[in-house]
Amino acid sequence: MKTKIALAQVNFFVGDVDGNADKMIYYARQAGLQKAQLVIFSELALSGYPPEDLLFRQSFHQKIKSAMPRLIAASADIDIILGAPWLDNNNLYNALFYLSEGKILGYYAKQCLPNYGIFDEKRYFTRGDKPCVVQRHGLAMGLVVCEDLWHSGPAAQAYAAGADCLISINASPYDHYKPAQRLDILRQQQLEAPLPIIYVQSVGAQDECVFDGGSLVLNKKGDVVLEAPYFTEGLSYIQYHGEKIVSLEEESAAVSEESLMYDALRFGLYDYAEKNHFRDALVGLSGGIDSALTLTIACDALGRDHVEAVLLPSRHTSDDSMALALEQVRLLGVKHRILSIEPIYEALLSTLGDHISTDENDLTHQNLQARARGILLMALSNQTGNILLTTGNKSEMAVGYATLYGDMAGGFAVLKDVYKTWVYRLSRYRNQQQYVIPEKVITRAPSAELAPGQTDQDNLPPYDILDRILEAYIEGEKSIDYIAATGFASLDDINKVVKLLYRAEYKRRQSAPGIKITTRAFGRERRYPISQGFV
Amino acid sequence: MKTKIALAQVNFFVGDVDGNADKMIYYARQAGLQKAQLVIFSELALSGYPPEDLLFRQSFHQKIKSAMPRLIAASADIDIILGAPWLDNNNLYNALFYLSEGKILGYYAKQCLPNYGIFDEKRYFTRGDKPCVVQRHGLAMGLVVCEDLWHSGPAAQAYAAGADCLISINASPYDHYKPAQRLDILRQQQLEAPLPIIYVQSVGAQDECVFDGGSLVLNKKGDVVLEAPYFTEGLSYIQYHGEKIVSLEEESAAVSEESLMYDALRFGLYDYAEKNHFRDALVGLSGGIDSALTLTIACDALGRDHVEAVLLPSRHTSDDSMALALEQVRLLGVKHRILSIEPIYEALLSTLGDHISTDENDLTHQNLQARARGILLMALSNQTGNILLTTGNKSEMAVGYATLYGDMAGGFAVLKDVYKTWVYRLSRYRNQQQYVIPEKVITRAPSAELAPGQTDQDNLPPYDILDRILEAYIEGEKSIDYIAATGFASLDDINKVVKLLYRAEYKRRQSAPGIKITTRAFGRERRYPISQGFV
Repeated sequence: MKTKIALAQVNFFVGDVDGNADKMIYYARQAGLQKAQLVIFSELALSGYPPEDLLFRQSFHQKIKSAMPRLIAASADIDIILGAPWLDNNNLYNALFYLSEGKILGYYAKQCLPNYGIFDEKRYFTRGDKPCVVQRHGLAMGLVVCEDLWHSGPAAQAYAAGADCLISINASPYDHYKPAQRLDILRQQQLEAPLPIIYVQSVGAQDECVFDGGSLVLNKKGDVVLEAPYFTEGLSYIQYHGEKIVSLEEESAAVSEESLMYDALRFGLYDYAEKNHFRDALVGLSGGIDSALTLTIACDALGRDHVEAVLLPSRHTSDDSMALALEQVRLLGVKHRILSIEPIYEALLSTLGDHISTDENDLTHQNLQARARGILLMALSNQTGNILLTTGNKSEMAVGYATLYGDMAGGFAVLKDVYKTWVYRLSRYRNQQQYVIPEKVITRAPSAELAPGQTDQDNLPPYDILDRILEAYIEGEKSIDYIAATGFASLDDINKVVKLLYRAEYKRRQSAPGIKITTRAFGRERRYPISQGFV
Repeated sequence: MKTKIALAQVNFFVGDVDGNADKMIYYARQAGLQKAQLVIFSELALSGYPPEDLLFRQSFHQKIKSAMPRLIAASADIDIILGAPWLDNNNLYNALFYLSEGKILGYYAKQCLPNYGIFDEKRYFTRGDKPCVVQRHGLAMGLVVCEDLWHSGPAAQAYAAGADCLISINASPYDHYKPAQRLDILRQQQLEAPLPIIYVQSVGAQDECVFDGGSLVLNKKGDVVLEAPYFTEGLSYIQYHGEKIVSLEEESAAVSEESLMYDALRFGLYDYAEKNHFRDALVGLSGGIDSALTLTIACDALGRDHVEAVLLPSRHTSDDSMALALEQVRLLGVKHRILSIEPIYEALLSTLGDHISTDENDLTHQNLQARARGILLMALSNQTGNILLTTGNKSEMAVGYATLYGDMAGGFAVLKDVYKTWVYRLSRYRNQQQYVIPEKVITRAPSAELAPGQTDQDNLPPYDILDRILEAYIEGEKSIDYIAATGFASLDDINKVVKLLYRAEYKRRQSAPGIKITTRAFGRERRYPISQGFV
C-alpha cells in the first residue's frame, strides 16, 4: 500500500483566522492535485502562533469555531491534520485535528505546555492527557504537538497505544542551535518510541520570533529521509511503501550556521514588514559595521529599490566614515540622502546654553547628536510611511551602549539579538556571496563617533571578550565567579559588564522589537526586573 | 492564654536578599520588644516580589540559602513566618517558613500558582500539595500563600487538618478594585473554612506593580478586626484571647477610591525612584491636565524641592497654557525653567527642507515639535541625572495619541495606566486637599497644541465615551458587537477606537514603565501581538 503525504510548511498570520483557513484549503487542494492522501499543517495553524492574549477574547474563538466547518468540508478530498486553539467546556486546548471524509476523525490535546523562554502556554491552555492514534491509509499515526516531543511521555504513550509512526506538528521559534537540536531531540524520542517521525514545522515571523521551516522526516533508524527548505513556504512530499518511507523531493543542500542565521534575520525583517504593511525601509548609515549589515539585510529582505540609506554626518564623522558609507550605497545600488545634523546640534547647544556642560566629551553632548539623528530619521519615516530600522546589536543592547530615542529610535531592530562578533561573521559571510560591505568597514576599529577620537573599546572590553562574558552570563546563566574561574576575562571586567547589563534594563524596555536568534533574547524571553538590588 | 501577633507590612527589594533579611531581623526585634510572640512577613519576603528570571540564577539561590540561617537564629526570641523561594531537589517552591526557637517548625509550599495577568509563577515554581498547620501559642495555624485563598481548596484543606485560624502571606499587586475584592475573597473562603484570617500584605513598588499594604485581620464571622494602613511600612499588632481576636491599633479612617489610587501613584513613583537611585525628577509642563497632575504627584512623592518643571513653548502654545503652567509652578512652589523649542524646530524644518511636507498640520510637523521637547528634556535629564517623567495617560497610550521619542520620552510614566476621566477625578480630588492645579487646567478643552487650533476631540470621541469603550474592550474583554449593543457609543466610533488600539501596540512596546492601577495594564499584564490580522 502506498500513501503519499504532504508536509505543508506554511506562513500563517496571528489573528487572521479566515485567511489562515483559506491558505490551508488552498494548500490542501494543491496536495490533492498531487494525489496526496494526507496534508499536514503546523501547530495552531488556524490562529497563527503565538496568538497571545487574543486567546482571551470570545470573539476570537467564535472566528475559530466558524472557520472549522470549512476545513472539515475540505477534508472530503484529502485528509487534513491541523492545529487550532480549541475551547471545550470552558477549557482551552492547544489541539490537533485529524479531518477526513468531511468529519473529525481524530482529536488530540497537547500534553506538554511550554511555559519557559518566550512561551506562556500555561497562561492559556489546559493540558491534554490522552494519546491519539489514527488508523488510516494502512498507517497507525500517533499524533503529537511540538513540546510533546521535548519530554519523555507522549511519544512512548502513542507507541504503547499502537502507533507505527509519529506525526508532530510544530511552531518552534528559531535560534541558532535549534536546527541541530531538533534532530537530536527526535532521535532521543526514538529510543523510547522506535518509530518513523514526520515533523512539520511552520515558517514565518511573528514579532520577535521567526519560524524556520526545515520540516523533517526521519525513518525508524533516525536517518533523515526529508529535510524541507528553510524559510520557504510550500509543500514537501513523502511516500510510504508499507514500512518504507521515501522522499519525493530533491535533496536539499547542506546549510551553514551563518547562512541560516542570516536568512533568519532577512526573513524575520521581511515578514515583520509584510505583516505590518510596510513596503519600504529607512536605515541611518554611518560607515560602521552595524548599519552596514542592517542595510544589507534590508536590501535582501525588501529589495534594494525599497530601501533608502540616510547619511547623517556631524563634526565628529570622519572622512573615512562618509566615504565608506557612500561606497556601500554604490555597491548595493540603494537610494540615499545626506542630512547634516550640525545645524540642529548647534540649535540644541544654543537653546540649552549653560543648562548643560560645555565639555563636548560629555555624555549629554553625545546623546544630543544621536537624538538629532533619531529625530531626523523619524521625520523621514513619518513623512514617507517607511519603517525606520535601528542598527544596534545585542552586545550594545546588553551593556546599554546605545542612546534611547537616538540610535535606538525605530520600528524594528534587525540585529537586536546578534552579538557584535556575530555581526562580523555575518558581514564576512554575506561578502563571500557578493561584495557589498566595504572591507574597511569590517576591519577598522568600531566607533560611535560622538566625541573626538572615540572608539567603542575606550569604555568596553574588546568585543570578543565582551561577547563571551555576555553569552556566559545571559545564555549560560553562569555566575560571575564561574565566569572568572574560566579565566578568559578579568573579574573587574566581568563585574563591570554585569553591572552595565542590569543597569541597561530600563533602556531595553523601550527598545524596538527584533528577531530572536539566540536562546535568550532580550524581551519576552528574558524577564528581568528594572528595579533590583541583586547586582 | 494571650498571644500577641505582629503583622509586618514591609517594603522588600527584589534581589536584595541580605537587605531583606536585615529588614526582617530588624522588625522581628521591634516586635519582640513589644512582647509579640509571632511576627508575620509577606510572600517571597526574602527575595522580594516578583523576582522574575533572577529565579533562574543559581547564585541568587545561594544568597537565599545563606541568608536563611540568620533568620532561623533570629527566631530564638520570637516566632517568624516568612516567604522565600526555596530550591529543593531541583524543584523550586514559593515557600512559607514558620521559624521558632531557632528551628524550622513549619514549611509550606504554595499550591495555587497564578499564571495570568502580570503573574508568571508557573514559569518558575512547582506547586505544593500539602497543608501545613502549626501548633503554637495555643493556636493551630493553617498557613497559606496569597493565591491559595483565591481558589477553593487550600483553606478548606487546612481547616480539615485542624486549623483554628488561617494565616495568609501575600504580595498582591494593587488595582483599584483590589482592596474591596480582597475582603470579598476572604469572606468567601470563610464559607468553606469558618476561621479567623490573618492576611499580611506587602508594601512597596516593583517596576509596574505597587503593593498597597492594608493587611487585614478578620474574625470568624468575617468582621474586620484590623485593617493596617495603606502604602505604609510598619508593624500592626493584634492579640488573641482564647478564641477572641482584638486589634491593638487605633482604627484607621475609611479611605476613598480616589485617595487610594492617588496614593498608589504617589507611592509607586516614590519607590521606583528610591529603588533606582533617583532623588529628583523633571516634568515637562504644558499647561494641560496630564502634566499638571504628573507634576503634582511628583511633588507629593519626592518633595517639591526635588522636582523641576520645564516649560517648552512653541508657536502653537497658547498664552493661556503658559500662564496656567506658571500659575501651577507658583501654587506648588517648584523650580522651573523655560526653554523655547522654536530655534530647534526651525533648524529641523530647515534641515529637512523639502524632504517633508510644508503643511504645518501634517503629523510629521507635530511629531517634530514633540520630539524637540523630548530631546531637550532628555538633555536636562542626562545633565542632572534626574529622572524624566512622561505625562501620557492610558487613554492616549491605548489609541496611540502620543509621540514616540517625543512626549513618550522618559524613565517613568506616572499616568500610564490612568484613563483620562480618572486624570480629571484625581486632579479634582487633589485640589480638594489643597488647591495646586489651576481650575482652568481642569475645565478647558484638552489639546496637544501641536497644530493651529487643535483639540484632542478633533480626532477622538469625547473622553468619557472613549474611556468607556476602552475599558469595556481592554479590561472587560468585550467584543465590538457587545459594546455596540450597550448603546453608549456608535459602531463607527467603537471600530475606530479598537483599530487604533491594535495599531498603537508598537508604540506601547517602546513606552516607559508606569504604575498598574487597573485590572489590565499595558505591559506584562496585557500581552498582545504587534503583528496581527485579527482587527
